[in-house]
Amino acid sequence: MQEASRRSGLEPTVEKLADEFKGTFSPETVRRYALDSLSVLSRGASLKQYVSLLVYRFTRERLLAAAQVEGKMNKEMPEVLFVCVHNAGRSQIAAALTHSLSGGRVHVRSAGSTPADEINPAVVQAMEEVGLDLSQEFPKPLTDEVVQAADVVITMGCGDACPIYPGKRYLDWEVEDPAGQPIETVRRIRDEIRGRVEGLLSELGVEAKP
Amino acid sequence: MQEASRRSGLEPTVEKLADEFKGTFSPETVRRYALDSLSVLSRGASLKQYVSLLVYRFTRERLLAAAQVEGKMNKEMPEVLFVCVHNAGRSQIAAALTHSLSGGRVHVRSAGSTPADEINPAVVQAMEEVGLDLSQEFPKPLTDEVVQAADVVITMGCGDACPIYPGKRYLDWEVEDPAGQPIETVRRIRDEIRGRVEGLLSELGVEAKP
Repeated sequence: MQEASRRSGLEPTVEKLADEFKGTFSPETVRRYALDSLSVLSRGASLKQYVSLLVYRFTRERLLAAAQVEGKMNKEMPEVLFVCVHNAGRSQIAAALTHSLSGGRVHVRSAGSTPADEINPAVVQAMEEVGLDLSQEFPKPLTDEVVQAADVVITMGCGDACPIYPGKRYLDWEVEDPAGQPIETVRRIRDEIRGRVEGLLSELGVEAKP
Repeated sequence: MQEASRRSGLEPTVEKLADEFKGTFSPETVRRYALDSLSVLSRGASLKQYVSLLVYRFTRERLLAAAQVEGKMNKEMPEVLFVCVHNAGRSQIAAALTHSLSGGRVHVRSAGSTPADEINPAVVQAMEEVGLDLSQEFPKPLTDEVVQAADVVITMGCGDACPIYPGKRYLDWEVEDPAGQPIETVRRIRDEIRGRVEGLLSELGVEAKP
């Protein structure tokens, strides 16, 4: 059964739930429920509907970016794109903090050159601690039109993977990768990124909210 | 291309986006982006990660219900289950209103005996008008343990599809199905369900928030 769960990519989910239900259900029971849930959800339309919602959100962002690039839509606010390797840590932290500190007056996107399986759980926890919910976010691949639509592209550790276009501002932030780091280090990285985001907002003429 | 999009179940997504981007992009361009997005998302881990999140949420609810049924977990609040045929209209409205009006002091679940592809868009709109966001919700199949864990099971038009267990309270609400109805009718149905939910909360001894 563990093999079936691994094949379906459900082992991280099983581990997370087994941890939450420790002392109540064994990992085997949790795994049986998770596999059955996947099967029940696949039989009906729920899974397809859920995937459609993801495609909808992702496509919508790409169309907005393409419309801006083609001059079919006015930019109402500065567009900032954060790129890191996995879109699982640094770029997610930076995007969430920029959105929150700007009070929505900056349009933020984030992507990864090689998106990871999931957002780093320690990053989710460290962001929860400052009241930001990343549970609905997911690592997204980098597509061309979001780079083209950005006014500022901020890379963190993705080196040459990010395409360069003339006429935009590129910044490379040297920030440690939170992958595999203990929560204390992740908190420090979060606070360092926060400082940099505040600097960026002030350069963009947007007052950071406390 | 329309055929490929239909096969992938993306046509409703394409129609929705084509409507949003009317005058900016043709339906063909929208469809091309949507298909490309599905392909890009499938290549990486994003899709798998997104599906895992759905399985996680669904499995977690089932495990909580199972733990309550087996007496391994205390119920801290009344459990109400709403069931209709498609979990796309009435049961979603009732669940969202019960959660909101009870201020979270009732644990609510909803399911459909034959879950639909997506939540009725007119229902999403009518709920948005009263400040409730259904965009992250989706039609879910009925599983046994959520029926067993419920204190009150409220069916709306699902007839014999809902299993009957001794010792719980079953109510059948005769409420018109919003499927295919104009928005004015959907609003009326929403307000009728609201009245019934207020009555239910008062029976449960939970004061409804205005």
